[in-house]
Amino acid sequence: MTPDEFRRYGKQVIDWIADYHESIASRPVMSRAEPGDVLAALPEHPPEKGEGFDGLLAALDRDIMPGVTHWQHPSFFGYFPSNSTGPSILGDLLSSGLGVQGMMWATSPAATELETRVADWTADLLDLPAKFRGNGAIQDSASSACLVALLSALHQAGGGAPGPDGIDRRRTLYISSQTHSSLEKAARVAGVGSANVRVVDVDPVTLAMDPAHLDALLTEDAAAGAVPAMVCATVGTTSTTAVDPVPAIGEVCRRHGVWLHVDAAYAGVAAVCPEFRWVNEGLAEYASSYSTNPHKWMLTNFDCTLLWMADRAPMLNALSILPEYLRNNATTSGDVIDYRDWQIPLGRRFRALKLWSVIRWYGAEGLREHIRTGSGLADELAALIAADPRYEVRPDHPFGLVCFRPLWDGLTTDEANAATMDALNRLNASGDLLLSHTKIGGHVLLRMAIGAPSTERRHILAAWDRIREETTA
Amino acid sequence: MTPDEFRRYGKQVIDWIADYHESIASRPVMSRAEPGDVLAALPEHPPEKGEGFDGLLAALDRDIMPGVTHWQHPSFFGYFPSNSTGPSILGDLLSSGLGVQGMMWATSPAATELETRVADWTADLLDLPAKFRGNGAIQDSASSACLVALLSALHQAGGGAPGPDGIDRRRTLYISSQTHSSLEKAARVAGVGSANVRVVDVDPVTLAMDPAHLDALLTEDAAAGAVPAMVCATVGTTSTTAVDPVPAIGEVCRRHGVWLHVDAAYAGVAAVCPEFRWVNEGLAEYASSYSTNPHKWMLTNFDCTLLWMADRAPMLNALSILPEYLRNNATTSGDVIDYRDWQIPLGRRFRALKLWSVIRWYGAEGLREHIRTGSGLADELAALIAADPRYEVRPDHPFGLVCFRPLWDGLTTDEANAATMDALNRLNASGDLLLSHTKIGGHVLLRMAIGAPSTERRHILAAWDRIREETTA
Repeated sequence: MTPDEFRRYGKQVIDWIADYHESIASRPVMSRAEPGDVLAALPEHPPEKGEGFDGLLAALDRDIMPGVTHWQHPSFFGYFPSNSTGPSILGDLLSSGLGVQGMMWATSPAATELETRVADWTADLLDLPAKFRGNGAIQDSASSACLVALLSALHQAGGGAPGPDGIDRRRTLYISSQTHSSLEKAARVAGVGSANVRVVDVDPVTLAMDPAHLDALLTEDAAAGAVPAMVCATVGTTSTTAVDPVPAIGEVCRRHGVWLHVDAAYAGVAAVCPEFRWVNEGLAEYASSYSTNPHKWMLTNFDCTLLWMADRAPMLNALSILPEYLRNNATTSGDVIDYRDWQIPLGRRFRALKLWSVIRWYGAEGLREHIRTGSGLADELAALIAADPRYEVRPDHPFGLVCFRPLWDGLTTDEANAATMDALNRLNASGDLLLSHTKIGGHVLLRMAIGAPSTERRHILAAWDRIREETTA
Repeated sequence: MTPDEFRRYGKQVIDWIADYHESIASRPVMSRAEPGDVLAALPEHPPEKGEGFDGLLAALDRDIMPGVTHWQHPSFFGYFPSNSTGPSILGDLLSSGLGVQGMMWATSPAATELETRVADWTADLLDLPAKFRGNGAIQDSASSACLVALLSALHQAGGGAPGPDGIDRRRTLYISSQTHSSLEKAARVAGVGSANVRVVDVDPVTLAMDPAHLDALLTEDAAAGAVPAMVCATVGTTSTTAVDPVPAIGEVCRRHGVWLHVDAAYAGVAAVCPEFRWVNEGLAEYASSYSTNPHKWMLTNFDCTLLWMADRAPMLNALSILPEYLRNNATTSGDVIDYRDWQIPLGRRFRALKLWSVIRWYGAEGLREHIRTGSGLADELAALIAADPRYEVRPDHPFGLVCFRPLWDGLTTDEANAATMDALNRLNASGDLLLSHTKIGGHVLLRMAIGAPSTERRHILAAWDRIREETTA
């Protein structure tokens, strides 16, 4: 493709995206495709001759778009927000256009240094402790960030090598029933094994991890010869945005000499607002590592997770390998960061550009306004639900997620759960909005996560109307 | 950013990228930035108020670009090519614009089904065995693909759980000294440990893995109680594009019941050309998994590695976890693929769009032409070097990489190595071209990897002139 062709087609794509965002509210939020529909619409074999670009946008509209669920729709309330904004899209476009590999400082210094700078900017914005400055890196996802934290913690804990008595001790990871599933996956990946993932009790009401039970488990496991490697506390769980008591958990970790990772994938970015700075409690004193996702609630498109280390040495010891073909003077000098040693893959996109573009465009002020709009709408929705005796809303909704359930007067719990799931499926199938669900204490709850930049008060009110229609019929 | 602002700024960015590619040949290939230069140019703190987009491209040109090494430069010959082409950039732009999460079929069916289709298209283009059809997925990198293969193999091998005798057997991985460093990293990540990575001998001339030594190691380890989990054979090693004898290695693996992963990160895509189909030898009969990177030599920007499984069950058993908040009817039905279970992270970009766009634009014909141009130029360069008695060129250069060294008449090996490294540093510092290096049999070799779509014969000739200038002074 010549530069002139790129100019022509590129501008068509820009217009296509702008048109898409302008028209998105008129589309059904959830795709109505059945399994196999998109596959069937696509040619079975690749073209022998190039087809040019002219037909691509038409094929996209005709064959692909019917299978797309619109995550940027103002009435998309499923899972957590995954915002794709103009400045972020353009930052990512610049990254694709430059096409540099940022695996090492030497392979394109700006890719490393801009990343160091925007990680520090984000630490500034969130008022994170000083120990994290200069120690942040972009990961593709919170899953990978937690895996890197676990690998670092395992290294610190001795890596499961046989002790002086020759006994190979099993290593243990501590989570709660509310911790994200990626932690159990990380334990499997890292060879810790699901059987060595210890599940700490939660408070039945707040769903927060119980530090006393953590203490008891750590004591019990150490006595049995296990090597406790890491505790993962969560600020804003995926299911209900529950908040683990990080200071109390941190105190227990310190006493037992165990690595504390704090996973604030969704909620951590709320700390751009001073009134949300409480999410950082305990980080300065206790956290060995911390992660949060600008690609969820901070207007940056996937993938962009930030992981900070209090001390980068255990991570570098766990993950560094330097083959001859990557040796270079800058690495040898020790004066530079090579981010390949901060992650699982070797290759790296220049992802810092999109975060730079987002922070420049919105400024601290714009980012705060975005968080406040989402959490304010969530408060308003929760109040509406609480005022209706046919529903029960979880009283704790500190961020942009509201969890609630229709009480279905007269139905058993199983019947009520089935009725709620049916209503959820009808709502999503209608295309008017998209919700997801969770299950707490045996009850299915609807999850309504608010946070798209296009979501306004009217979308919340319309959603609540539709929910009531389908759950009181 | 409103859609109208996005149209305006988006078109500026498209023009910026087109201008960049038009002017790239006039830039020094390697950045001249010193450590800290880019950091110092960037504001220390994030802006309080949004700065808009107008200043961003100016700041990019002023503060960031001096720190960029130009991987798309026609005289970039370092590492391996990492091509960023128009259709790929635009496919990725569409992915950013849509901003959908493809973690499960249910979260945006088209993201899954287009990926299944383009993985099959690629298998078609490369004439891969039928067992891989429907079993391919995009990974971020070859490192991650090899880790997923290893985790699947470990699961298949029994996961290191204690056997009936209660003995916890160590699991072993087999590579050669020429295998990519990501395999040792994968062993560390997966808890196999560097100590259980067994290094198989290579032929001192071809650098290909010795199947007889592999056989001996497997026999020895099994006798010692270890559980051999995986053998990784490489087609086109990173150092010199050596090719392991996959059929002979596969025969050994079959006899020992061990998983064979074939890593063809760089060279596998050459099979778009019938004359390169020999790179697939042994895959049909022996390979449990196979990976190659369209983001290296197939005109698709990073990240885009394809991983195929002969049988997806071990991978799914190793990596699937389904928490309540991700349950959905499509997943429960078993009728769909959920690619989150084919990788380490949970979240996924809609990466299939860029591969779709690339294959449509070039067609099989265009992709073949690209491979033939690169390998043809490499042959021509190797012939030039071979004709000059002051140099030694590795006789095997089956793809686009040529490895060679100045003989430095009269110098000891150490002195010659130092002189070669000095010449390499001078060449790279000149900005005229970029080479990397490796070390084989105690000798430093220069690596010249040809494969950027903008690289023409004249760039090769100019590079050879400059190399001779710096190595015969």
